[in-house]
Amino acid sequence: MHPAPARTLSSQLAERFAERIRDRLLAPGTRLPSVRQCAAQHEVSPSTVVAAYDQLLAQGLVDARRHRGFYVRDWARKPPSALAGSARAAIDSAASTDPAEARRRNAPISAATLMRGMFHSDSRRPQPGMGVLPPDWLDNDFMASALRRTTAGKGLHDATVRYGDPQGDAELRRVLAERLASQGIGAAPAQIITTIGATQALDIVSRTLLKPGDTVMVEDPGWSVEFARLGALGMRMLPVPRGADGPDLAVMARYCEAHAGSTEAPRLFVSVSVLHNPTGYSLSPASAHRLLQLAQRHDFHIVEDDTYHHLAPEHATRLAQLDGLQRTVYVSGFAKILAPAWRVGFLAAPPGLVEPLLDTKLLATLTTPSLLERALAQCIEQGQLRRHAERVRTRLDAARSRSVRLAQAAGCTFVAEPAGLFGWIDTGVDTDQLALRLLDEGYMIAPGALFHANRAPSTRMRINFATTQEAAFWQAFERVRDALGRG
Amino acid sequence: MHPAPARTLSSQLAERFAERIRDRLLAPGTRLPSVRQCAAQHEVSPSTVVAAYDQLLAQGLVDARRHRGFYVRDWARKPPSALAGSARAAIDSAASTDPAEARRRNAPISAATLMRGMFHSDSRRPQPGMGVLPPDWLDNDFMASALRRTTAGKGLHDATVRYGDPQGDAELRRVLAERLASQGIGAAPAQIITTIGATQALDIVSRTLLKPGDTVMVEDPGWSVEFARLGALGMRMLPVPRGADGPDLAVMARYCEAHAGSTEAPRLFVSVSVLHNPTGYSLSPASAHRLLQLAQRHDFHIVEDDTYHHLAPEHATRLAQLDGLQRTVYVSGFAKILAPAWRVGFLAAPPGLVEPLLDTKLLATLTTPSLLERALAQCIEQGQLRRHAERVRTRLDAARSRSVRLAQAAGCTFVAEPAGLFGWIDTGVDTDQLALRLLDEGYMIAPGALFHANRAPSTRMRINFATTQEAAFWQAFERVRDALGRG
Repeated sequence: MHPAPARTLSSQLAERFAERIRDRLLAPGTRLPSVRQCAAQHEVSPSTVVAAYDQLLAQGLVDARRHRGFYVRDWARKPPSALAGSARAAIDSAASTDPAEARRRNAPISAATLMRGMFHSDSRRPQPGMGVLPPDWLDNDFMASALRRTTAGKGLHDATVRYGDPQGDAELRRVLAERLASQGIGAAPAQIITTIGATQALDIVSRTLLKPGDTVMVEDPGWSVEFARLGALGMRMLPVPRGADGPDLAVMARYCEAHAGSTEAPRLFVSVSVLHNPTGYSLSPASAHRLLQLAQRHDFHIVEDDTYHHLAPEHATRLAQLDGLQRTVYVSGFAKILAPAWRVGFLAAPPGLVEPLLDTKLLATLTTPSLLERALAQCIEQGQLRRHAERVRTRLDAARSRSVRLAQAAGCTFVAEPAGLFGWIDTGVDTDQLALRLLDEGYMIAPGALFHANRAPSTRMRINFATTQEAAFWQAFERVRDALGRG
Repeated sequence: MHPAPARTLSSQLAERFAERIRDRLLAPGTRLPSVRQCAAQHEVSPSTVVAAYDQLLAQGLVDARRHRGFYVRDWARKPPSALAGSARAAIDSAASTDPAEARRRNAPISAATLMRGMFHSDSRRPQPGMGVLPPDWLDNDFMASALRRTTAGKGLHDATVRYGDPQGDAELRRVLAERLASQGIGAAPAQIITTIGATQALDIVSRTLLKPGDTVMVEDPGWSVEFARLGALGMRMLPVPRGADGPDLAVMARYCEAHAGSTEAPRLFVSVSVLHNPTGYSLSPASAHRLLQLAQRHDFHIVEDDTYHHLAPEHATRLAQLDGLQRTVYVSGFAKILAPAWRVGFLAAPPGLVEPLLDTKLLATLTTPSLLERALAQCIEQGQLRRHAERVRTRLDAARSRSVRLAQAAGCTFVAEPAGLFGWIDTGVDTDQLALRLLDEGYMIAPGALFHANRAPSTRMRINFATTQEAAFWQAFERVRDALGRG
C-alpha cells in the first residue's frame, strides 16, 4: 500500500475485511490473520492492523477471543435458540457430525460462501471456484423463440391460471422419457416428476426416503451443498471414498454389515456417478453392477445425481440404466448447460416411489411453473439443446486442454484424469489458506476441505476448466502459493 | 342401474371404485360401504356388490379385513421401510401425533385427495371443496403483455443464463416492499425473499425455525396441508382454537406455561390471521396486540400466512404491522388472485432471520425463476393487479350472497360470519360420510375433519363461495344429506 495517514490506511484495511464479511466471502467463525501476518501481507505497521481490527470489533463484525485473535462473528443479530438445527449451521459446517469444530472455525470458504459466490460473478473476473459454466457460454437465441411459441395463443393463459399437473408438464415428461430411453433408461412419463432444478429433486428424495437421524452414505470427496442439505435435515452421513471406477464398495459393505438390521443401517447412497464432482470420475459398468448388488443385499436406495449429463461422453454408464429404476432414483437438470435461472430439473423414480415423492413436492412447492417446462420441452424436442450441448462440449474440450497445461506448468498435479467441467488438483499447500490469500487477488477458489463431509484440511482444490484458461490466474496462484510455502 | 347381466353390473361398479382409488379420490385406508349399504345405494343385489369387491381385491386395490369389510389399500407397491416418516404418511393422517388411527381409517377425503382434486378441475363441474378461484375468474390479458415486456431485448437472456439474486428479483422485492409499506408493514427489500408460492415460504420457515421434534402451535380449525407439512417434518403440533377475534390466547398461555423452559416449549405459532381458512375470521387489533405480548413473554416466533391478502378488506390488521417484523415472519403469494401456475410467493422476515431463511431456500431450490418474478413485478407496479383484485372482490361479493342464500335455504347454518372465499357451515350430518356420497354425484367437498389436526369427525364443511352459487349443487347436497339423516 502507498503511504498515507495511519487512520486512513487502517480504515481501508477494515473496509476491505468488512466488505467480505458482509458479502459472506469470509464465513462466520473464520479466524482473521494474526496482526503480524496481516501487517506483513499488506505491508503496513502492526498498529495499523490493530486499529483496523478494532474498527471491525466496533462494527460488530468480528469477535475478539482473549489470546486467540479475531473471528468473524456468527450472526450480526443472533436469532433465538430455535435456530439450533438450522440450515445455516449445517451449511457452515457442511456436515451434521463434524468432528473437527476447531478446524471448522478456521475455514475461510464455506459451502454458503461458495454458493453466494456463484451469484456474484457478473461484476468479477472468471472465478476458478465456480460450479457452473460462465453465462456467455450459455448464450443462445432458441430459448426466446421457444418461449414465444409456448406463450402464443391460449398457451400463456393455460400455463398461468391453472395449476397444471402436479407431476409437471406432460409434454416435458414425454420428451424426457424419450431422452432417458435413448440413454437406455426405461422410464414412463408417469415415473417422472419435474422439480425446481436438480436441487429440489435431491431435496425431495432426501425428505421422502429418509427421516431425521437416518443414515446415508455419501461420496468423499463429494459436493458440500449435498452434505449441508443432509445435515440440515438431521441425517447421519457416512463418507465413502470415491475412486476412478466408482465408490469404494468394500467400505460400503463394511458400513452395511456393521449396522445390518439396526436403525443405523444405511438407507440411501447419494452418488454423482458420471463426471463426479469434484474429481470428474465416471462409474465403470462393473462397479455399477456390484454397487447395485450391494444395494439389493442390504436394501438401500440410491439417488443418482446426473447433473453433468450434458457435458458427459455419449455412452457413459448410469446406475439407472442397469437397475431399470428399481432401487435408483435418477436426478438431472438443465442448469449446467442451458438455463440456470429457469430452475427446471426432474427425477425419474421406481413406480412405487412416485406417489410419495410427489406428495413431498406438493408439500414443498405445490407445483412447478409449467410455462418454463413447456418451453424447455420444445428446445429438447427440436434438437436445439442437443446441438447446443455439442458446441459447449467442443468449447470445453479446448478450455480443458489450456487449463491443464497451465495448471501443470504452475506445478500442480492432477489427482484424477481431467474430464468434464472440473479438475481436481493437488497444489502442495493448504488450500484453505490459499483461498483466503487469493481472495485478496480477487479470485475465489474451491478448497479441498469443502468436498469432505468432515471438512478435513487438504492440499487439493477443484478448478473449473472454463474459468481457468487464462495465465493471469495461474500467475496469481503461483505467487500466493509460493509465499505460503515459504511462510 | 338398468338390469344387465350380473357380471357386467359388478364390473361397472368395480370400475367406478377402481377409478376413484387410482385418482386418489378415495384415500388409502378408506372403508368401502358395507355390502348391504352399497347394494341399497346403487340398487343392485348384494351378490353384485360382493362380486365387485372381489374384483377390486383381485386387482390389489383393496384389502379385506375379516368381519370388518373392505379397505382401500395403502400402497399399490409397498415401498421399503425407509418411508416410515414420509410425507405420504403425514398427508394421509394430516398430523404426526394422530390419536385416532381407527378414525382416520374411515376418512374418505384426505389432504392429499383434496390437493389432487385441485388439479382435476378442468374436466369437471365447479368443486365446492376447492381452495382456489375457478380459472375463468383469473382471466386477464395484462399478464401476457407483462411477460412480453420482460422478455424483450436482453431481458430474457439475463433471466435465463444467470442465476440472479438468491433472495429473488430485486424489482419484485422493491415493489413488494412498497406494497407492504402501504399495509403499514415496514420491510426493506433486503428483508424479503421470494419463493415458489406461499407454500415454499411456509416450508422454508418451518425448516429454518424448527428442528424435528420441536413443538409448534397451530390453529384449529386450520389448513390440513400445513398440518401435513409439519407432520412430515416431524414436528409436534398443539391445536389452538380459533375464534372470531383471533386464536384462543388462554389456551396458548397454558401451553407456554406448562412447557416453559423445557424442550417442549412451543417455538412457533402458525396463523392465517386475515380471512382465516376455513372460517373466514379476521384477527382483531386487540387480539393481535395480546398475541404479540404472549410471543414476547414466551419467546416464540409467529408465521403469519396472508395467502388471502388480495381478497381481504383494505384495512385488516396484520400481526406484522403491529410487530414491525420483530418476531413475525409474513408470508403471502399470488396464487389466489392471479397466476397459480407461476408459483410466485414471498416472505418478509426480521433482519436477523433473513440469512438463515435464505440458506434454507438455497438448499431447497437454489434460486427461483426471475423471469416470472420480474413480469409479476410489472403487473403490481402498473396497478393492474390492484384493479384486477377489485374486480374479483366485487364478483366474489355477489357470489357469496348467492351461496349464502342457497346454503341457508338448504338448512345449513354459518358457524362464522361469511367473508372472503370460504364459508364454514354446519350441515347437521357427518361430513366425511357426506363427502363419500357426494363423490357419487360428481362433487368434491371439503369435510370438517380435514381442518382438525386430530381429524376429529365433524358435521361442518368448508364451501368455496365461487363454486357453490348454483342451485344444482345444493339440490344434490340436500338429497344426499337427507338420505344420510334417515340412514
